[in-house]
Amino acid sequence: MNFLEERIAKDGIVKEGNVLKVDSFLNHQMDISLFEQMGAEFKRRFEGAPINKILTIEASGIGIASIVARYFDVPVVFAKKSHTINLEGEMYVAEVESFTHRCKNQVIVSQKFLSPEDHVLIIDDFLANGCALQGLISIVNSAGATVEGIGIAIEKGFQQGGRIIRNLGYHLESLAIVESMDAATGEICFARQPEL
Amino acid sequence: MNFLEERIAKDGIVKEGNVLKVDSFLNHQMDISLFEQMGAEFKRRFEGAPINKILTIEASGIGIASIVARYFDVPVVFAKKSHTINLEGEMYVAEVESFTHRCKNQVIVSQKFLSPEDHVLIIDDFLANGCALQGLISIVNSAGATVEGIGIAIEKGFQQGGRIIRNLGYHLESLAIVESMDAATGEICFARQPEL
Repeated sequence: MNFLEERIAKDGIVKEGNVLKVDSFLNHQMDISLFEQMGAEFKRRFEGAPINKILTIEASGIGIASIVARYFDVPVVFAKKSHTINLEGEMYVAEVESFTHRCKNQVIVSQKFLSPEDHVLIIDDFLANGCALQGLISIVNSAGATVEGIGIAIEKGFQQGGRIIRNLGYHLESLAIVESMDAATGEICFARQPEL
Repeated sequence: MNFLEERIAKDGIVKEGNVLKVDSFLNHQMDISLFEQMGAEFKRRFEGAPINKILTIEASGIGIASIVARYFDVPVVFAKKSHTINLEGEMYVAEVESFTHRCKNQVIVSQKFLSPEDHVLIIDDFLANGCALQGLISIVNSAGATVEGIGIAIEKGFQQGGRIIRNLGYHLESLAIVESMDAATGEICFARQPEL
């Protein structure tokens, strides 16, 4: 197991309905030292890609993306999930359906912050059915920018999101891929990963 | 002017209705190098305080808090603005009114992540009327934890939030305090700050 799989095995909690709670270190309380390890590992996995910007989505992607950005020395843009009165001007908009929240959201990025010159690394905490990620890819494509790669902390390998994205030819790296989990025993099985 | 005031003067945009747009570097696109400078400065201003946790609120506080946390070597907890099906168990809840969104939100933190042993630095991007901040302070107090300090990137000094918090005796440090701004000329005046 790699460092993230070990942490998930230690502190993740499996709930009924294929829910994996990692809120003690990833998406409510955030272990910044762990995020540093993730940043170093994403840097290794996307070595050589001409990445000049990181794109993520509020809220739980922001912390990871901010720390990962240090390893690439690039700014972060985070997509917003709904209009606010401070967002104005021309926007890229994609409609996505959330698995967790069971509702549709508009994902929005100001056109000021993505252009055809941008080479984008997309970062997010979870990949399950992949709707949020599809929205982010749609926005990068709308801008005429290039998706250089997609870095995910935890992929639910038993849902279809990752397979679709890889089928489309994107360079997707998930630091931990959960193949199965059992709410009764708490057991979590991970897909084989390349050695670190 | 300090580094943040200089950046606001250069890239901030003043809009009618006392709106200051800093979305090119602070809260939509995020300049992580700038956040590093902010982290170092907060570390200097809160030197000696026994801080063991940083608390912020989604979404735009998360990036700053994550980088600032590196300087204190502590985890970050971010408060959520509404219930999700993944949030369960006992919560601290405070009701706050947003100036920007013109609606009331419930601010929520799991009781697992704040306890009487915690010495908390609250971090956020903006302080205006202070409702969000009051909600965060309320949550820390509900937990029996200690507010060691409050670090804000930009305070609107012409609104009442900062004065109330200082009157209450909290150690509040705002890296830039806007005293006035003029949408017609774009001019921004800052309150005097201690020399860095």
